[in-house]
Order: sequence, then structure tokens, then C-alpha cells
Amino acid sequence: MHASVADVAAALGGEVLGDPSLGLHRIASLHSADAHSISFLAQNKFLAQLHASQAGCVILRPEHRELAQQRAAAILTPDPYLYYARLTQWWVQRQRAQQPAGVHPTAHIGQGVQLHPSARIGAFVVIEEGAHIGEGVVIGPHTVVGTRAVLGAHTRLAARVSFGEHCRVGARGMIHSGAVIGADGFGFAPQAGAWTRIEQLGAVRLGDDVDIGANTCVDRGALDDTVLEDGVKLDNLIQIAHNVHIGAHTAMAGCVGVAGSARIGKHCTFGGAAMILGHLEIGDHVHISAASVVMSSIIKPGQYSGVFPIDDNGAWEKNAATLRQLHTLRARLRALEKKFAS
Amino acid sequence: MHASVADVAAALGGEVLGDPSLGLHRIASLHSADAHSISFLAQNKFLAQLHASQAGCVILRPEHRELAQQRAAAILTPDPYLYYARLTQWWVQRQRAQQPAGVHPTAHIGQGVQLHPSARIGAFVVIEEGAHIGEGVVIGPHTVVGTRAVLGAHTRLAARVSFGEHCRVGARGMIHSGAVIGADGFGFAPQAGAWTRIEQLGAVRLGDDVDIGANTCVDRGALDDTVLEDGVKLDNLIQIAHNVHIGAHTAMAGCVGVAGSARIGKHCTFGGAAMILGHLEIGDHVHISAASVVMSSIIKPGQYSGVFPIDDNGAWEKNAATLRQLHTLRARLRALEKKFAS
Amino acid sequence: MHASVADVAAALGGEVLGDPSLGLHRIASLHSADAHSISFLAQNKFLAQLHASQAGCVILRPEHRELAQQRAAAILTPDPYLYYARLTQWWVQRQRAQQPAGVHPTAHIGQGVQLHPSARIGAFVVIEEGAHIGEGVVIGPHTVVGTRAVLGAHTRLAARVSFGEHCRVGARGMIHSGAVIGADGFGFAPQAGAWTRIEQLGAVRLGDDVDIGANTCVDRGALDDTVLEDGVKLDNLIQIAHNVHIGAHTAMAGCVGVAGSARIGKHCTFGGAAMILGHLEIGDHVHISAASVVMSSIIKPGQYSGVFPIDDNGAWEKNAATLRQLHTLRARLRALEKKFAS
Repeated sequence: MHASVADVAAALGGEVLGDPSLGLHRIASLHSADAHSISFLAQNKFLAQLHASQAGCVILRPEHRELAQQRAAAILTPDPYLYYARLTQWWVQRQRAQQPAGVHPTAHIGQGVQLHPSARIGAFVVIEEGAHIGEGVVIGPHTVVGTRAVLGAHTRLAARVSFGEHCRVGARGMIHSGAVIGADGFGFAPQAGAWTRIEQLGAVRLGDDVDIGANTCVDRGALDDTVLEDGVKLDNLIQIAHNVHIGAHTAMAGCVGVAGSARIGKHCTFGGAAMILGHLEIGDHVHISAASVVMSSIIKPGQYSGVFPIDDNGAWEKNAATLRQLHTLRARLRALEKKFAS
Repeated sequence: MHASVADVAAALGGEVLGDPSLGLHRIASLHSADAHSISFLAQNKFLAQLHASQAGCVILRPEHRELAQQRAAAILTPDPYLYYARLTQWWVQRQRAQQPAGVHPTAHIGQGVQLHPSARIGAFVVIEEGAHIGEGVVIGPHTVVGTRAVLGAHTRLAARVSFGEHCRVGARGMIHSGAVIGADGFGFAPQAGAWTRIEQLGAVRLGDDVDIGANTCVDRGALDDTVLEDGVKLDNLIQIAHNVHIGAHTAMAGCVGVAGSARIGKHCTFGGAAMILGHLEIGDHVHISAASVVMSSIIKPGQYSGVFPIDDNGAWEKNAATLRQLHTLRARLRALEKKFAS
Repeated sequence: MHASVADVAAALGGEVLGDPSLGLHRIASLHSADAHSISFLAQNKFLAQLHASQAGCVILRPEHRELAQQRAAAILTPDPYLYYARLTQWWVQRQRAQQPAGVHPTAHIGQGVQLHPSARIGAFVVIEEGAHIGEGVVIGPHTVVGTRAVLGAHTRLAARVSFGEHCRVGARGMIHSGAVIGADGFGFAPQAGAWTRIEQLGAVRLGDDVDIGANTCVDRGALDDTVLEDGVKLDNLIQIAHNVHIGAHTAMAGCVGVAGSARIGKHCTFGGAAMILGHLEIGDHVHISAASVVMSSIIKPGQYSGVFPIDDNGAWEKNAATLRQLHTLRARLRALEKKFAS
């Protein structure tokens, strides 16, 4: 058994009902839980799943006290979903605590690297000269940390991450496999029909509690830095171009693209594959729907969308063809209105 | 010479016309073939290319027996394109058969790894504790296989793949370079304007005969697994979020994104950059056109599309601006209809 | 100090005003420059920033001679932006010149590799049999170069690049971290409801002065090669499918996708996330706006767009719903016009 119900409540709080000594071997969704699983009810729309669930222990809101009493055990807390999130962290940290600190013998550590003794450095990791690796940092196999880069305390880099020279990340960050932090921004000066490369001399600065998804790219700035403030969360396969600035606690789902020098506010959300053009501004608390394209600045908080509605192919073909005449249709409508009025 | 026409037919069948001893050094397209190339006619629309081709041997349908007799050699078979596919596999496997099994001396194999002696493990590969590597598996340089992961027989991982802990792939799979299987799903609970990370405790399960493209990501599930059934084919730079379920023999072209917990049927196809929102269902035999966005469930088989038609920039600007008034235009049209009727 | 104003002008030309001995420690944007920075005025719209800037030296057009005379130093040149691009290259090359050639002791060099003595090969690099590494090539840590691949003079591969077997890149190329050159194209023959893999036997050929962004994929051809001509510039997270041909000096921003066998002309530009379907042709000097989808060939030079305009969510919902009836609306309008005419 991984833990008892009492262990969980001692660590995370909440009111325990039923048997505190119940052993838990798994955190589970309601439908896959068994008698030694702990599960949770995030929203009332899942009450039917709760009734059908085999879960030995369920995390519930106080209003569900009666349902709780029907279980072998339960924990009451005002926000079960948040409790579940914290439970997963506690659960994983207990497992991680068993992994020893130290540098794998195959890792290559450059000259002048400041490496906290509590850090854990995986196989074939490369840390180049003068980098600074903070307390409790974990670096997975095959990750490359560039010259004079700085990794804040308890930040984790998964396997096969590129973290570029002079780039910085704060505390408690998480960078997933394949992410590339600090590749060159895409900058070229036109010259007689060809392109002359502009070397990118800025860096990337990530705040505290930043998560970067797998194969996501955050480019270094041309001269100044690309900046992600505290608590920014990026999913997989996202492109953040040079000199973008993203405000605190903004979250982006997979496949989003942000073009150069866009300035994005705090507490924004971006649905998957949203695209933000360059050199524009997005205010705080702006929410962009999936697959929508932002072509000019949006300052006012709110939800914004712009997606062609999907339809069966035949209907789409007709409507799309007509759309190419829409401006003309408006003119015809206007003409008709005028004729009718006269 | 790589093989003779007789060798090919002995391995793959078909009726040989002309010289079975003709030596073949290359499989080639009709336009680049030479007298020692083997080529194929996939569709009759390429007949002109066939006439112009220098190919020594051509794979043709029986109906083209007369054309076949004009070549140094030919192979007749009901489906030349499929024959060509099988020919490429046979061709490559003959080359691979010359590569010895074994573990490169620089690879790092963790404790308790079950490694079939016929497997071939490349330079700087990391296989973590308790992983299971099946018969004939090939792992390219710099690939990382996590704790207790399972690779089925004859599956190949290219160079620089991340295959996460507890994830599984069946037999005859192919995972291309840069792919990340089993990064954490994007899950956070909101807490006072910030985001609390939900550790992702599920895994990824890939069936038999699954292909995963370069730099494609398949995230591990939050609690249950992300599942790709047998024969699923994913192209490059695709994002599959946590707890997605993809049915057997569904294929997705490059840059597709599938959001969390979407459930996709069997025998579907997705054009490049199609986007599927989360928590919805797509039935069997549904075909989504490139760059189309699925925002609600689609159960009925068929082809679905939703793309703004491209136009010269000036025309697009006018039509796009008018589109923002489309609902109003409809109201004006309705008003006019009413007036006219009265 | 990195250089003096005189050093810069000696290397790159231009007319020096003010103190040629002024020491420069940084190339900076106007707003972050200090008394020992060199900055530039790209366009007159930034004149206010110039007036407010602390920059010790500014690169200006000759028409701004009077403004130049107000600085500690200035350099006059007809195209300050191009001068700045060349300055960044000169600046970086002075730093790189200090890095010694040679092969890191952890690198694995296969049999028969032709390695120019001036090349610099990083930690844990793998170069497989028979590859050819030209003069002054730089290969970052963890990069894998496949069998018989060819890297032209002064080309640089960043850390963690996959450069596949038999692929070639010309001189002065730059391939960023995570890029995958030469993964298999996505080719399958249908067989009884499943997919039979077509092994990809072509390669990738990149011309001179080609830049490839981070985590971008360029697939090898099915039989013939995928080709990017001289001076092509690709940003991050781009997908180039098998047998695509891209003409010289064409540039693509992040997240673009090009499907198989598309043939793209010279001097084109593609905005971020533009998508190009397969087997079509795009002429020279065609410019595709961001997020636009090319579904048929475009030969005529010009700017082309096709994006649903973003709006507040409520307005979008109404207009998108109406769009699904657009063809019907046109019919109703036509009917009304006819009635009115009669």
C-alpha cells in the first residue's frame, strides 16, 4: 500500500469519514477505482459515476456528507478537484523522495558549473561552462544545459531537453521532453532577394512555477530577452517566437503559435492551435478559443473566437464558394434595400 | 546489384514477364528509373509517364500485359501500389538483416531490464530499470526508454525518441526521431488565479503496427491511459493529449491536434492540421479534411470540412469584414423578404 | 569591451562620425542601449525611440547625419537594418573564433567518416559510417548524423539534431535543436482496411545557406529526394512532407505545414501556421498570409489570405451559425432580386 486515508489527510487536510486506516494503492477515476483506490467528485454531473464507483475512498464536498457515509472512507473538502491535484503532487513526491541525488557517471559537467549537491543529474546529461543548477533540481537523461544557464530550485528538466546558453528558469519549473528553450529567433534582413541572418543575442527568462510542454519551443530574443512570467503554463508543440512577453499565470493549450514581439497579458487562456500574430498586444484576462487567429491587438477582457464551422463536405463546399462572393452579396442586398425603399 | 526480378517475385509473388535474371539496383519512380530500376504504375493517369520511363522492370496490373511485354521485365499483380509497398519493406529488410544484434558499448541499461538477445541497441541509448525489450527490437542512438516500459517484438525506435515510464507499444511499431511518448498531460486545477499542477499518473498504450511520426507527442493519461489501438498511423508534429482514445487503423496527417479525452473511432482519416477539441466523440469511418476544426461530436460516417477559402488578399479582406456582419445581413434579408411578402 | 566603433567600421564599412575609439560591449535595441552599446534605426517610425535612447553609437542612414552628430559616435550606411544583421554575425563569429576545433572525447565517430580537422564535434555526438563532415562544421552535443550524410562547409548543427542517413546539406547552413531531417515520409498503401507501410527510400537535399528551425521536420522522399534549394529559411515546428520541393530564398514562419509532393517556387513567404496541401504548385513570389490554407495551385505572384476573422465569442457564434446557411441565403437573395425585377 502506498498510503492510508489518515496519511493523506495528515498531509493535505480535510475531514475524514469512515475508516482512516484504509490502505490506498492508487489514485483512480471513479469508473476505474477499486476498494483500495482514492477517487474524487469534481462536479455534480458525475454523481451517477460516483454511485456506480467501487472506490474505497472518495474526496467530496461537505454537501455530500451523506454520500460520503456510504463509503468505506471519504474526505470532505471545499474543492475536491484542487485536493486531487495536491494529492497527485504529494503522491509523486513520496515516490521521488526515494530517488537519490547525485550526478550520473556518464554526465558531462563543464568547467565552473555551480551544482547544488541535492541535484539529480541523469545519464549523458551535458551541462556547459558556468551554468548554475539550484537546490533539488532534477535533470533527465540526454538533456543539454547551455553555458551560463540558470536553473532555479526544484525545477525539473525531463529527458532530452535543450536549455540554451544564458537562459534562466525560476523555481519549481517543469520542462518536458523535447522542449527547446533558447533556439535562435527567426530573424533575417532582406538583401537583394536573399536573406541575411541576424544572430540572436538575447536569451529566454522563465519565471517561477513555469511549465513547458513536450517539443515546445521558446526562442531567444534578438537583442532583449523573451520573457514568460511566473506561473505560465504551456502545453506541447507550442511555438513562442523571439521577444514575446507572456504575463503571469497565462496558459496555452497544445499547438499554439505566438509570433515575434507579441505582448500577452496575465491570466489569459489560449485554446489549442490558436495563433497570435506578431507585434500586437493582448490584455489581461483575454481568452482565445481554439484554432482562432488573433490579427490585431485585443485589450478588453473576454472570450474571442474565429473558426470556420465544420460541416459535411458538400455543404462546406457550397458555403465556402459563396463566401468568396460575400462582399458582393452585401452590395446586392443593399441595392435591393434601396430599390425597395424608393 | 541488390536483387534480380526473380528474387522479387520469389519473395512477393506476381507473374514475371521478360527476363527474370534482370538485376535491380534501385526502386524508382517512373520518371527517374533506369534500365536496372524497378518501378510501378499506381494509376492509369500515369500511363504517359510509363511510356516515357527508362525502367527496366515495371509492376503492372494484368490488364497492362501488352505494355509489360515491351519492357525488359515486368511483374503483373492486381494491386501494383500495394506490391510496391511490400517491395520497399522486403528491400529494406534485406539491408537491415546485415546489421548485427547487440548493445552498443556506450548504451546505459538499467537494473532488471529484460532485453531480448536479438535486439539492437544504439549508441548512448538509456533503458531504465525494469523495461522489457522484445525480440528483434531496434533502438536508435540517444533514445531514452523509461522505467518498466514495454517494447513489443520487432518494434523500432529511431534516434532521439523519448518513450516514457510504464508506457507500452505492441509489435512491429515504428516511432520516429524526436517523438515523445508519455510526457505529462496538460492538467492543472485553478487556485486563486494560479494553476496547481495535476501530476499525470496514467501511461500510454500503443497497439500493434502503430507508427508515430517525428516530433509527435502522445501524452500519458491523468489517471487512466491514453490509448492508440492497432494499426494507428500518426504523421509528424501531431499532438495527442491525455486520455485520448484512437480506434484501430485511424490515420492522421502532420500537425493534427487532438485535445484531452477525445474518443476517436476506427478507420478514420484526418488531413493535416485538423484540430479535434476535447471530450468529444468521433465515430468510425469519419474523415476530417485538412485544417478543419471539430468542435462537437461527429458520429455519422462521411467527409467533413471547415476551412476559410483562400483568396487574393484584397478580396479576402472585404469578405472577411463582411463576414463579421453576416448575422445582421441575414436579418436584413429576412426583413426585406417580409416587406416584399406584405 | 568587445570592440571599438573603428573595429566595426573596419570590418563592415560605413562612415564613422564622432569618436571611433568608443568601446562597445553590447549590441542593443534603442530602448535598452547604454553609453557603450551600439544600436540602429531601422525605420523612421522609431525616431522617438532614437531621441530617448542612451546608445553611445547608432547606425543611421546618411539622411540622419545631423542626428548622428549628436551621439558620442555613429555609423552612416544606406541600410542600417542590414548593417545590424551583418554586425551580429561579425560579433558572434569573433566569439566563436575562440572555440577550438576538435572532437569531444565522448563523441562516437563511425568507420569511414571523413571529418575535416577544422570541424568542432560536441559531447555524445554520433556520426555514423561514411558520413562527410566539411570544413569548419560545428555539431552540438547529442546530435546524430546518419550513415553517408554530407554536411557542407561551415554548416552548424545545434544540440540534439537528427540528420538522417544519406541526407545532404550545403555550405553555411544552420539547423537548430530538435530538428529532424530525414525521418520517413508518411506513406502507406491501403490493404483490406489497414495500412501497409511504404519504406521511404529517398533522402533530403538542402542547398547552401539553408536555415532550419527548432523541432522542424523535413521528411525524406519516398523514392526521389525532398529538396530545399539555396537560401531557404524555415522557422520552428514546421512540417515538410516527403518529396516537397521548395525554391531558393523562400521563407516560412513557425508552424507551417507542407503536404507531400507540393512544389513551391522561389522567393515566396509563408506566414505562421499556413498550410499547403499536397501535390499542388505554388509559383515564384507568392506570399501566403499566416494561418491560411492553400487547397489548390497558385501561380500568380501576390499576397493571398484566408482566415476567419476573430470576434467576441457571441458575435462569432451567430455569424458562424449563419455561415452554414450562406449558400441558402444567396439563393433567397437571388429569389428576391428576381421577384423585385418582375
